[in-house]
Amino acid sequence: MASLSLVDISKLSPKFQKLYPILKDFVENDCIPNEEVFEAQIGTGEDRWSSYPPIIEELKKKARSLGLWNLFLGRDYSEGAGLTNLEYSLMAEEMGRSIHLAPEACNCSAPDTGNMEVFAKYGSPAQKKKWLEPLLDGKIRSAFAMTEKNVASSDATNIETNIRRVGNDYVINGHKWWISGAGDPRCKVFLVMGKTDASNKDAHKQQSIVIVPAGAPGVHVVRAMTVFGYDDAPEGHCEIIFKDVKVPLENIVLGEGRGFEVIQGRLGPGRIHHCMRSIGVCERVLDFMLARVTDPSRKTFGRLIAQHGTTVATIAQSRIEVDQARFLVLNAADKIDKFKAKGAMKEIGMAKVVAARLICQIIDRVIQAHGAAISQDFPLARLYATARTLRFADGPDEVHIQQIGKIELRRAGESTERIAKHKRRQEEELKKWGLPVSREPKVKFAASAKL
Amino acid sequence: MASLSLVDISKLSPKFQKLYPILKDFVENDCIPNEEVFEAQIGTGEDRWSSYPPIIEELKKKARSLGLWNLFLGRDYSEGAGLTNLEYSLMAEEMGRSIHLAPEACNCSAPDTGNMEVFAKYGSPAQKKKWLEPLLDGKIRSAFAMTEKNVASSDATNIETNIRRVGNDYVINGHKWWISGAGDPRCKVFLVMGKTDASNKDAHKQQSIVIVPAGAPGVHVVRAMTVFGYDDAPEGHCEIIFKDVKVPLENIVLGEGRGFEVIQGRLGPGRIHHCMRSIGVCERVLDFMLARVTDPSRKTFGRLIAQHGTTVATIAQSRIEVDQARFLVLNAADKIDKFKAKGAMKEIGMAKVVAARLICQIIDRVIQAHGAAISQDFPLARLYATARTLRFADGPDEVHIQQIGKIELRRAGESTERIAKHKRRQEEELKKWGLPVSREPKVKFAASAKL
Amino acid sequence: MASLSLVDISKLSPKFQKLYPILKDFVENDCIPNEEVFEAQIGTGEDRWSSYPPIIEELKKKARSLGLWNLFLGRDYSEGAGLTNLEYSLMAEEMGRSIHLAPEACNCSAPDTGNMEVFAKYGSPAQKKKWLEPLLDGKIRSAFAMTEKNVASSDATNIETNIRRVGNDYVINGHKWWISGAGDPRCKVFLVMGKTDASNKDAHKQQSIVIVPAGAPGVHVVRAMTVFGYDDAPEGHCEIIFKDVKVPLENIVLGEGRGFEVIQGRLGPGRIHHCMRSIGVCERVLDFMLARVTDPSRKTFGRLIAQHGTTVATIAQSRIEVDQARFLVLNAADKIDKFKAKGAMKEIGMAKVVAARLICQIIDRVIQAHGAAISQDFPLARLYATARTLRFADGPDEVHIQQIGKIELRRAGESTERIAKHKRRQEEELKKWGLPVSREPKVKFAASAKL
Amino acid sequence: MASLSLVDISKLSPKFQKLYPILKDFVENDCIPNEEVFEAQIGTGEDRWSSYPPIIEELKKKARSLGLWNLFLGRDYSEGAGLTNLEYSLMAEEMGRSIHLAPEACNCSAPDTGNMEVFAKYGSPAQKKKWLEPLLDGKIRSAFAMTEKNVASSDATNIETNIRRVGNDYVINGHKWWISGAGDPRCKVFLVMGKTDASNKDAHKQQSIVIVPAGAPGVHVVRAMTVFGYDDAPEGHCEIIFKDVKVPLENIVLGEGRGFEVIQGRLGPGRIHHCMRSIGVCERVLDFMLARVTDPSRKTFGRLIAQHGTTVATIAQSRIEVDQARFLVLNAADKIDKFKAKGAMKEIGMAKVVAARLICQIIDRVIQAHGAAISQDFPLARLYATARTLRFADGPDEVHIQQIGKIELRRAGESTERIAKHKRRQEEELKKWGLPVSREPKVKFAASAKL
Repeated sequence: MASLSLVDISKLSPKFQKLYPILKDFVENDCIPNEEVFEAQIGTGEDRWSSYPPIIEELKKKARSLGLWNLFLGRDYSEGAGLTNLEYSLMAEEMGRSIHLAPEACNCSAPDTGNMEVFAKYGSPAQKKKWLEPLLDGKIRSAFAMTEKNVASSDATNIETNIRRVGNDYVINGHKWWISGAGDPRCKVFLVMGKTDASNKDAHKQQSIVIVPAGAPGVHVVRAMTVFGYDDAPEGHCEIIFKDVKVPLENIVLGEGRGFEVIQGRLGPGRIHHCMRSIGVCERVLDFMLARVTDPSRKTFGRLIAQHGTTVATIAQSRIEVDQARFLVLNAADKIDKFKAKGAMKEIGMAKVVAARLICQIIDRVIQAHGAAISQDFPLARLYATARTLRFADGPDEVHIQQIGKIELRRAGESTERIAKHKRRQEEELKKWGLPVSREPKVKFAASAKL
Repeated sequence: MASLSLVDISKLSPKFQKLYPILKDFVENDCIPNEEVFEAQIGTGEDRWSSYPPIIEELKKKARSLGLWNLFLGRDYSEGAGLTNLEYSLMAEEMGRSIHLAPEACNCSAPDTGNMEVFAKYGSPAQKKKWLEPLLDGKIRSAFAMTEKNVASSDATNIETNIRRVGNDYVINGHKWWISGAGDPRCKVFLVMGKTDASNKDAHKQQSIVIVPAGAPGVHVVRAMTVFGYDDAPEGHCEIIFKDVKVPLENIVLGEGRGFEVIQGRLGPGRIHHCMRSIGVCERVLDFMLARVTDPSRKTFGRLIAQHGTTVATIAQSRIEVDQARFLVLNAADKIDKFKAKGAMKEIGMAKVVAARLICQIIDRVIQAHGAAISQDFPLARLYATARTLRFADGPDEVHIQQIGKIELRRAGESTERIAKHKRRQEEELKKWGLPVSREPKVKFAASAKL
Repeated sequence: MASLSLVDISKLSPKFQKLYPILKDFVENDCIPNEEVFEAQIGTGEDRWSSYPPIIEELKKKARSLGLWNLFLGRDYSEGAGLTNLEYSLMAEEMGRSIHLAPEACNCSAPDTGNMEVFAKYGSPAQKKKWLEPLLDGKIRSAFAMTEKNVASSDATNIETNIRRVGNDYVINGHKWWISGAGDPRCKVFLVMGKTDASNKDAHKQQSIVIVPAGAPGVHVVRAMTVFGYDDAPEGHCEIIFKDVKVPLENIVLGEGRGFEVIQGRLGPGRIHHCMRSIGVCERVLDFMLARVTDPSRKTFGRLIAQHGTTVATIAQSRIEVDQARFLVLNAADKIDKFKAKGAMKEIGMAKVVAARLICQIIDRVIQAHGAAISQDFPLARLYATARTLRFADGPDEVHIQQIGKIELRRAGESTERIAKHKRRQEEELKKWGLPVSREPKVKFAASAKL
Repeated sequence: MASLSLVDISKLSPKFQKLYPILKDFVENDCIPNEEVFEAQIGTGEDRWSSYPPIIEELKKKARSLGLWNLFLGRDYSEGAGLTNLEYSLMAEEMGRSIHLAPEACNCSAPDTGNMEVFAKYGSPAQKKKWLEPLLDGKIRSAFAMTEKNVASSDATNIETNIRRVGNDYVINGHKWWISGAGDPRCKVFLVMGKTDASNKDAHKQQSIVIVPAGAPGVHVVRAMTVFGYDDAPEGHCEIIFKDVKVPLENIVLGEGRGFEVIQGRLGPGRIHHCMRSIGVCERVLDFMLARVTDPSRKTFGRLIAQHGTTVATIAQSRIEVDQARFLVLNAADKIDKFKAKGAMKEIGMAKVVAARLICQIIDRVIQAHGAAISQDFPLARLYATARTLRFADGPDEVHIQQIGKIELRRAGESTERIAKHKRRQEEELKKWGLPVSREPKVKFAASAKL
C-alpha cells in the first residue's frame, strides 16, 4: 500500500475531504462489483456498436447523486468541482481501480474530459451551449480526431487532414484512425484537427481544430481498431474517413491556426489523469498478486509462492516503483496547480513516461506471478491491452523522453557557469593556502626525454 | 534541476527558511571551492593517519558561526537544531553536493551523527557529559564498531564479539572491520556491538552496545581497508581487533541485551541522511554531465554530444530517476516525523535501496558521458567508490529488498478479503441483472464426449 | 541479419543442405503469403471450432511433396527425417518466420511433435500403430493434458488428476486447462498426466501418463481459454473435465509411476523447437521494424525514424540480443545431440528462459517503433499474445532460473577447492620470493592502544 | 562453467590441441599463484615507475619454454603461432583468468599485441627489424598514442596532434593522454597518431601514424592517470606531451594519410582479445561467488547465501550472460578468420559492447554477493577498475552501438522489398481463394453518416 506521508490529505480542501471517502466507497462497493455486469451487457454481433451497457447509466446516476460528478474540472471553470489538480489526481487514482467503469460513472473519462476542457476553455458561448452542456450533463459523448493513418502522428505537425474554407463553411477531408470513443452510439461530436494553412512557414500555425457533429454527411466510421484482440466496444478506437464534410465557420475552436494551442492546453492535465488512473490500476492488480502468492492452495516446491525470495523481491520492487511513480505524478499535478500546464511541461512528461511504462510492467509481473493469468478468467490481459496503448497515446515514450532531456539541457549553461566559478574559486583557495594549483607528484618516467 | 512542487519549502519552519539559503551558499561558495584544498592537505606517508586537513576546522568555525551546526539533531533533542527530518533531509541534499566536506563542516557527518543520536537518546547523564558534549562541540569524533570480519554481518544476529562481565568490568574480545572513522586521529570513542548473552534464545536479545575509549588497552587498529583503491584517509574504514579490552560496567548503553534496540533507533534517520546526501551527489555530477555534453570543444561526428539522441535520453532518464528517488526519501523522512522510524520501516528501506543504487548508476553514467572520467582529474571515481559502499553499508540491498517485500506482504490478507468481497458482491449484482454468474459461450467441441 | 559464422552450415549433413533452402523458399513463398488466407478461413460463430482452414491441408500436401515432413524426428527414430537437433533447430527458426502456418504445414507443430516423440520413444507397438502412424501421417492431431486448474502446475508434483485402476481399466477424474490443441476438430487423442499412486513417498513416482481418445465418455471440453483476447481457434487452449473416463490398462504409457520420465523425455528437444521458432519470429518482426523506420512517408521531426539515435540503438541492441539467444539455443541443441537432453539440462533451461523473454521484448519494441502496431492491421499483437504464453509454457521463467542456478551451484565445491589451492600455492610462492604472506603497511593509528 | 558444445574443441588444429591444456595448467599453477608476488614486487615511491616485478620475467621464460609465446599472431604472419582467431580466443579467455599476469607472461598483452600486428602487417623491413623483433622477443614494450586530452577522441577524426614534414623529418606536436604502457621502464617505442594533412577534405585521410622512440627529445611523460585510484604501475596510462619531437621520414607507418587504415587493421582482432580476456575474468570471479555463497561460515538468516532464491537467480542470470557473450565473441573471431576484420565489423562491434558491459556487471554482482569485497583483500575492486575502462577503450559503447545499428539498417531495403513481395503474393493468394483482400466486418457505426 502506498505511503503518502508527503501529501497530507488532511490538509487538502474540505470538498476533497468530503468526497474522497465517498469516491473510495463508490469504487469499492459499486464499480468493482459491477465490472462483470458491464462486460456481460456489452452487445454481441450487430448490437456491439449500437447499444450500451445499462449498468453504466445506473452508476452515473448514483455517482451524480453522491456528488462524484465532473470532478476533473478544476477551479478555473465555473462548471467544475473546484478540486485542485493534486486533489483530482488522488481521485483519479481511486477511479483507476475500476478503470473501465468508475471514470465514466463519474463523467470523468477520456476523451470527454479533455474535450470538455477544450470547450470550457476555448469554446464560444454557442459552442458551450451546444456541446459542453450535454457533455457535462453526461448526455452525450465525444471524440478527439487527431491521429492519422498515413503519417507519423507522433509529430503532430505531420497531421495532414485538409480544412478548407469555402464560403461560410469549412470543408474537411482527411483520414484518421485510433479515434477513441467514436464507435459509441452516444458519441455526438468530434473535435477534428487539420490544416487550414498548410503553407504557413511556422509549422505550428498550420493546424486548426473544428467541431464536426457525428453523423454529418461525409463522415465515414470505417471500423474499430483492435488492441491485442480487444475491440473495446462500445467505445472503440475507430478509423474514420472525412470526405468533403462541411461545417459552418463558427465551428472553429479558438481560431484558425491555433490548433497547437488547443492541444497543448488539452493535454497537460489529461496526461496526469491517465497517469493516476494507471497507478490505480497498478494498486488493483498488486492486490491480485498479494492474494495469489499467499494462496495456500497454490504452493510450489513445498512453499507458498510468497516464500520464494524472488517473489518477495518482485513485490518489493513493484511497491517501490509504484510509489515513486505516484510522487512524480502528484508533483506534476501540484505544479500544474501552481504554474499551469505550461510551467510543468517537464514534470508532466516525466510523469507520463514513467506511468505508461509502469502500468505495463506491473501488470506483466502480476500475470507472471499468477502463472498464466492472460485468459478471460482474469481482468489482467484486457488491462494490459489498455495499458499498452498508453505508451503511444498522447505521444510515444520516445518523443517525451527527448523533450524532457531537452528541457533539462536548457540549464546546461547554468551548470557550465557554476563549474567555471567553482574552478576560479578553487584556484583562489589553493593559492590562499599556499598550495600548488596542480598537484601531480613529480615522478620521473623512463620514456620521458631527459630535461 | 529537481522539481519540488509537492514539498512546499515556503511552508516549512522559519528556522529552516532562514538556514536553507545560508547552507546553500556555504556549500557553493565555501565547501566546493575548498575540495581541492582538502585533498591536498591530507597527509602522505607517516602523516596520512596522524594529521587532519586544517581547512576542515576553518570550515567548521564558519559553519558554526552561520548557525549551520548539528542540524541533524531534531526536535526530540534539546541539543538539536530543531529541524524536522523532512527539513533536515533537504539540508542533507545540499551538503551532499560537497559530500567530503560539507557534512563534516556542519558537524553532520556519519558516523558521528548516528552516534550522537545514540548518546542523546539512550545515554546516561555521565555518558552524555563525557562523550556527547565534545561530539556536539565538534571536538572529537567517534566510530560504530559493528561489522565483523569472520561472519556475514548483514544478518546482525551473526555478530559474535564477546562482551563478558568480569567483576565491575566488561571484557571485550572481537574482530571488527569496515569501522568507518576509526583511522581519524580525532576519533576518541567506539560504540562496540557484541554478545553479552550468546545463549539467549531470542537472538535479538543477545547483543549489547558498550562504549570503548579509543586507545584503551587491547584495542588494535590493524589497518585501513581500501575502497576501489582509496583509503579514505584520514577517516578510514578500519580493521580492529579488540583483545581483552576492559571497560567499566557503566559503559553499557541502555542496558544488556538491548543492542538491537539501539541499532534500530540509530539507523532509521541515518539512512535517510545517507540517501539525501546521495541525491546531492547525483545533482552535483549531473551538472558535470550537462556541462560536458554541451562543451563545444568536445563534438563527435559533427555534433555536440548533447545532440545525440541517446545522450538526451540518458539525461532525461537520469532526471526522472533522481526526482523519483528524492520523493521517496523525503516521504520517508516525513513519515519518520509523523510516526517515528519504527512506523516508517518500509519507507526507509525503500529509500535506502533506491538511493544507493541510484547514486552508483548516475555517477557511472556521468563517467561514461565524459568519455573516461575515472581519473584523478575528476572527482567522479572517488565519488563512485564512496557510492558503491552504500549498497552494503547499513545492510546490503538484498536484505532490505526482502524486508520491504515482507512488510508489503503483511497486507496480503486484506487483499485476499477484499477480492473475496468483490466476488461475492459481483455475484449479487449479476443476479440482480438476471445475468449468469459464469458467462462462457456454449460451444460444442469435437473432442468432447456427447452429453 | 544473424551472423552464423560459428555454425558452419556447409559442414552439416547432405540431407540438411538439400532441405534447408527448400524450406526457406517454402516459408517465404508459400507460407507467409497465405497467412491472411489462413486467418480468413478460420470459421466464425458455430464453425469456429468445427472446421479447419483448407489452406493448411494444401500447404501440408506441398510440404510433404518437397520432403519437408516430420523434420523434427531425429536420428534415433526410424520414422524421422534423420536431422540432428542442431540441424532441425535451424529449420525450426525458418518455420518460426511463419509461425502459425509453417510448423503445421511441415507436420512439425506443437504439441504433436512432443506427443509423437512420446509415442515413438515410449509407445507399445499397438500404441504406435494406433496413434503414432496417423500423427506422422498428418491425419490426426493430439493434445497433452498436464496443467490443472486448481493447483500450481509449475511444480508438476502438484498435478492431482486421479487415475485409478478398476479391473482392466483406468478410471480418470481431473480438471485440466490450457490444453493446447484440444479444440481442434482433428484432435483425436490426449496424453493425460495424473496420479496412479498418490501415496508414493517419492513424489516423482506418483504420476503416470495414460492415453485417452478424444470423445471418450466423460471427456468434457468446457471452453477455450483466451490469450490477450485471442482464442487461437481452431486449435484452442481448452479447459477439460475428465469425469470417470475409462480407458483400458494397455493405454498406460511406459508404465505406472513413470510420468515424470515421460515428460522429461518429451520436454527437452521440444523446448528447443519453441526457442528456435521464437527466434524466427524475432527475425520476421525485425524485418518489419527495419522497413518501418526507414519508410520515407513516416518521418518525424524532419527525420526518418531510423535517423533518431535511440532508434539506431534499439536496433543494435535487438540484433545483439537475438544473435546471443540463437547461439544459446543452437548450443543447447548441439549438446542434446551429443549428450541427450539429460546431459543438456542447464543449456536447455538457459535457452528456454532467454528465448521466451526475448520474443516478448523484441515484438514489444517493434510494436513501439511502429507507433501503434497493436491492431488487426499488423500481425504483431497476435504474435505477442503467442509469445507471452512462452514465459509460462513448459514451466515459468522463474522455475527454470532456479534450476539453472542450482545446476551451476553444483560446481561450487570445485570452485572452493580451486581457490583454496590457489591460496596455498600463493603462500608458497610468496615465501619462495622472501615476501611476507600478509602485506599490510605498518601504520600507527591514533585509536590503537600503545603496544 | 561454460558449455561450449557448439565449438568443438576436438576439431581445432593439432597445435591448439597441444597448447590449450598446457596454457590452462600454466595459468592455474603458475600465474594465479603468483598474482600476490607480482603485486608485492611492484615498486613503491621512486621505484614505482622505474622497476618491474621480477616474477614477470620468470613467468615469461617459463611460458616461452612451454611454447606459450606470441600466440596472438595468426596464420597471416610468419612470426606467429599459427592459431586461428577462434583458437586464440579460447586461449585468451584462459589468460584472462589471470589478467594481470598471464597475457604478459605469454607476450600476448595489450597494447603490444596490436602494435606488433601493426609492425608485422604494415612495417617496412627496417621497422620490423628495429621494433618488431625485440617486441616479439619480449625484450621491449610499446605504446599506442592516439587519445588526446583536448578533443573528444571517441571520434578519431578529432585527433589533432600535428605531424609536420620539415626536411627529412616529421616534427610532432600534440597532447595525448591515457597512453597505456607508457609508464613502463621497458616501453621503448610509441606509435603516434596525428594529422599530416589537416586540410584534406576526406577527414579519414588526414591522419598518419609515426614511430617515436621513447626518450626522444621533446617527449614528456607528464604523469600516470589513475583509474578508480589505481595507477596501474608499472605500466600506467600516461599523459604525454610531444613538443617539437623530430623523427626521420622513414618512421611513417604505411604512408601519409593512412592512419585510419592502420587503426582499423589494428583494432579488429585486438578487440576480440580484450573480449575473451574479459570473459576469462568473469569466469574467475564467478568462481569466487560460488565459493563465497556456499561458505558455511557466512550464513544469513539461517541459510547459506546460496539458499536465498535471489542469489540462485543472480547466479543463473550470470551464467546465461557469460555464455551468451562468449558465443558472440567466438563467432566474431571465427568470422574474422573467414572474412577478415573488415567483413566482421558488426560482429566485432557487438562482441565489444557486450563483453565490456558484461565484465563490469559480473564483477559488480560478485562484489555485492560477498558483502563488501571492494577492499585490498579481494582482487575484485582492482579488476573492476580495469573492467570499467573497457567501456571506453577502443571507442565507447555508445559509438559502437550506433555503428552496429547502422550496419543493421543497411538491410532495411531488402526487408522492405521482401515485405512488399509478401503483400503482393498475399493478394494473389486471397484472390485465388475467392477471399476479399480487406476483411473488415461490415458494421454500422452510429457516428457514421448515412450512406
